Amino acid sequence: MPLSPADDAFADNLAKTLPADTLRRAEPRYLEEPRGHWKGSAGWVALPRSADETARVVRACAEAGVGVVPYGGGTGLVGGQVSPDQPAPLVISLERMTRIRAVSAVENVLTVEAGAILTDVQAAAEEAGRLFPLSLGSEGSARIGGLLATNAGGVNTLRYGNARDLVLGLEAVLPDGTLWHGLKRLRKDNTGYDLRHLLMGAEGTLGLITAASLKLFPRPGATGVTILSVAGPQAALDLLSMARGQLGEQISAFELIHRMGFDFLAETMPEVRQPWPEPPEWAVLIEIGLGAGQDPDTALETLFGEALEAGLVDDGMVAQSEQQAADFWACREQIPEANRHIGAISSHDIAVPLNALPEFIARGGPALAELGDFRINCFGHVGDGNLHYNVFPPKGRKASEFREQREAIKTCVHDVVHALEGSVSAEHGIGRLKVGDLERYGDPAKLAAMRAIKVALDPAGIMNPGAVLRG
Amino acid sequence: MPLSPADDAFADNLAKTLPADTLRRAEPRYLEEPRGHWKGSAGWVALPRSADETARVVRACAEAGVGVVPYGGGTGLVGGQVSPDQPAPLVISLERMTRIRAVSAVENVLTVEAGAILTDVQAAAEEAGRLFPLSLGSEGSARIGGLLATNAGGVNTLRYGNARDLVLGLEAVLPDGTLWHGLKRLRKDNTGYDLRHLLMGAEGTLGLITAASLKLFPRPGATGVTILSVAGPQAALDLLSMARGQLGEQISAFELIHRMGFDFLAETMPEVRQPWPEPPEWAVLIEIGLGAGQDPDTALETLFGEALEAGLVDDGMVAQSEQQAADFWACREQIPEANRHIGAISSHDIAVPLNALPEFIARGGPALAELGDFRINCFGHVGDGNLHYNVFPPKGRKASEFREQREAIKTCVHDVVHALEGSVSAEHGIGRLKVGDLERYGDPAKLAAMRAIKVALDPAGIMNPGAVLRG
Repeated sequence: MPLSPADDAFADNLAKTLPADTLRRAEPRYLEEPRGHWKGSAGWVALPRSADETARVVRACAEAGVGVVPYGGGTGLVGGQVSPDQPAPLVISLERMTRIRAVSAVENVLTVEAGAILTDVQAAAEEAGRLFPLSLGSEGSARIGGLLATNAGGVNTLRYGNARDLVLGLEAVLPDGTLWHGLKRLRKDNTGYDLRHLLMGAEGTLGLITAASLKLFPRPGATGVTILSVAGPQAALDLLSMARGQLGEQISAFELIHRMGFDFLAETMPEVRQPWPEPPEWAVLIEIGLGAGQDPDTALETLFGEALEAGLVDDGMVAQSEQQAADFWACREQIPEANRHIGAISSHDIAVPLNALPEFIARGGPALAELGDFRINCFGHVGDGNLHYNVFPPKGRKASEFREQREAIKTCVHDVVHALEGSVSAEHGIGRLKVGDLERYGDPAKLAAMRAIKVALDPAGIMNPGAVLRG
Repeated sequence: MPLSPADDAFADNLAKTLPADTLRRAEPRYLEEPRGHWKGSAGWVALPRSADETARVVRACAEAGVGVVPYGGGTGLVGGQVSPDQPAPLVISLERMTRIRAVSAVENVLTVEAGAILTDVQAAAEEAGRLFPLSLGSEGSARIGGLLATNAGGVNTLRYGNARDLVLGLEAVLPDGTLWHGLKRLRKDNTGYDLRHLLMGAEGTLGLITAASLKLFPRPGATGVTILSVAGPQAALDLLSMARGQLGEQISAFELIHRMGFDFLAETMPEVRQPWPEPPEWAVLIEIGLGAGQDPDTALETLFGEALEAGLVDDGMVAQSEQQAADFWACREQIPEANRHIGAISSHDIAVPLNALPEFIARGGPALAELGDFRINCFGHVGDGNLHYNVFPPKGRKASEFREQREAIKTCVHDVVHALEGSVSAEHGIGRLKVGDLERYGDPAKLAAMRAIKVALDPAGIMNPGAVLRG
């Protein structure tokens, strides 16, 4: 059965069952996404103040066959937060549900409503003397619900895992409007199918997360940062192995940066302080966090020395101050902004098995060169095998001139990734952007199982219609 | 529709499509489980040699409506591995599929067939200079497929997580007999619903795992073990917090032992060397694993000293040799065997939020005392809030005399656990033993979702019928 629109009549009826000002006409910001590929179809937005109100809203949508688009911080990069298709869905934003319900340093657990912004959660953990390690570029506006629904990644996954690995329990509204009370604070609980992990990564298509209990960690006693120029991707991998041998699990981040990133920064953001006057072809940025009483600088100097001797590294610096550490990090973290200034034709958030990483880089360039004279900016979380592999026009040309080649470029990159047993969406998810990729590269048995689960839990197809799976 | 039996006619037909000797009449060992509560109904067992053969067997069962019982090492403690109900199911054992397919020290990944025994997987990781940290009492006979299907726990979860946290990819036969090729080796992969985590913890009711790619870890450079007598459960928790403050994530195990455990060992296994001539009321055993070049003994002496000063600990020893470390561990690891010699009336594998742990222990004893004069042996993975809380008859009496009180004892313990927001099955799963508990204590929205998923993926209900969910 086709969905019904969230029209004025529906909104008027629903409003009667809710406190005043819970429903509003959707302002433009609820209908936009950062890359500007889609525009949501205009309708209404619900701004509930509690899980119960959220459940009531979803139940009304289920009864009326009205689509629901769960809206977090709106920072997603694959269009999961806007539905451009008619009939207009009801947007549900949990921006009024931002309460930290509890923090326990003994349990190492923080319980929070889904609308809380990531930096606020990090700050609440820090106040309790603990670390909530999820960290990524959009942390100042991304909300926990969306971060969990999309299983966000970021810079600390090498050490602490992806968003899904940081969750002990969830509270969520299921597609029929029932509220699942799953806010457990247990490290071990083998009582039935794991709904948590099913909702995380489902991008709002199987339910709407209203709260979560999150794992906290000890704060590393001392952190150290180094930036090193490496001979190439294979040397970066060998350096990672060497670092792991010396430092075990205490490596918090291991990032790869290609010269193109430094060049883009110099061209578009000269205010970013760069470590080298003439950037190397490849660099890695490493952050470690050690226990109290240990000295990270000595550990990094030791690593640097042995890597020099082994010929993996030919130059580098260990940050001598917090300012210098921040400067090194800025080079990595400002690359996406520099990319936006340059303007990419096509951006790819991919992962390959670690051993295949040098081959991916070796094959990607020549494969793209057959399509044209492009610039490639390749950077990312090499410790996780996760690269942001972005394709730009030649200097002096604009991305818009190459619009008709975008699809071919994307297919070219994703075909290489797929041949190497990689993932065409490492961090960002499927959303609406990669529905076709999932169909092209996904395992057929998995896709069939996904469709069966979607129909079973959401028979009317109201939850985030058109995201992840074709409606 | 009711299931059909795996009778001789079905077996004869199926045998024609498979290599010789793939099907056999089920020997008694496939129809028994360690606690002797159930006996499987006699039928046939399939011993496939590959994932494709396994898929063919499941497909034939799906077509004929014959139940399937996946059989790992047979060590499960909740009856998940035997179906006592008629009609007789087909048992599928992967004991011929034990190959380590690949190990990569650079990727920190080991790919293995589901029939491999845990100790063999640990050994293969060690040979590559890496650690596969899953470790539990039955590791010499438990097989990877069963360990993952039940999301096994064990002694190292505090540091490395449960079985599900150690898995990058799965290959599995789904209930319709299709083979899901999900053996990814990626740390980040956000392409659709997470089937891995759905199959893990489903105890064979949604599919049959045929292979897995597993995460490996750096081997700690040096380990240290200490056993300390603590003032009580609250002191144990405070000690855990203190240890975390000093050692971060480097605590591999933090186990609680009540005096009853030492007493049972002394009574039934006098060959086990005990650390104290007169055991304390409560003790904790701590294992730490540090990076290369660090000294665990010094770290443990520091912890011991500060804990003494803070009044959390009043006596203890840091192991001075591998033998002594093994002796300390034997006290913890032989308790289940001593329990078997004594004979429990009722055993409980429970977890509570860490903050609630002292209250659980304080309430559990008096609640049980109202039912009779029982002995309680409480021990377990206190770092995870996971206790094995076992109830025994008074000295000189036998468990069999109290059989009719078993249900009341179990309900008494589980009600306290539930009131404290705990889990009535922390490690062992639901199997057939705890189907009623899941119905009693499970969240209704979660149970409804579980049933919908089961029907969607296994409409004929052939996969491990009667386990987890009532057939």
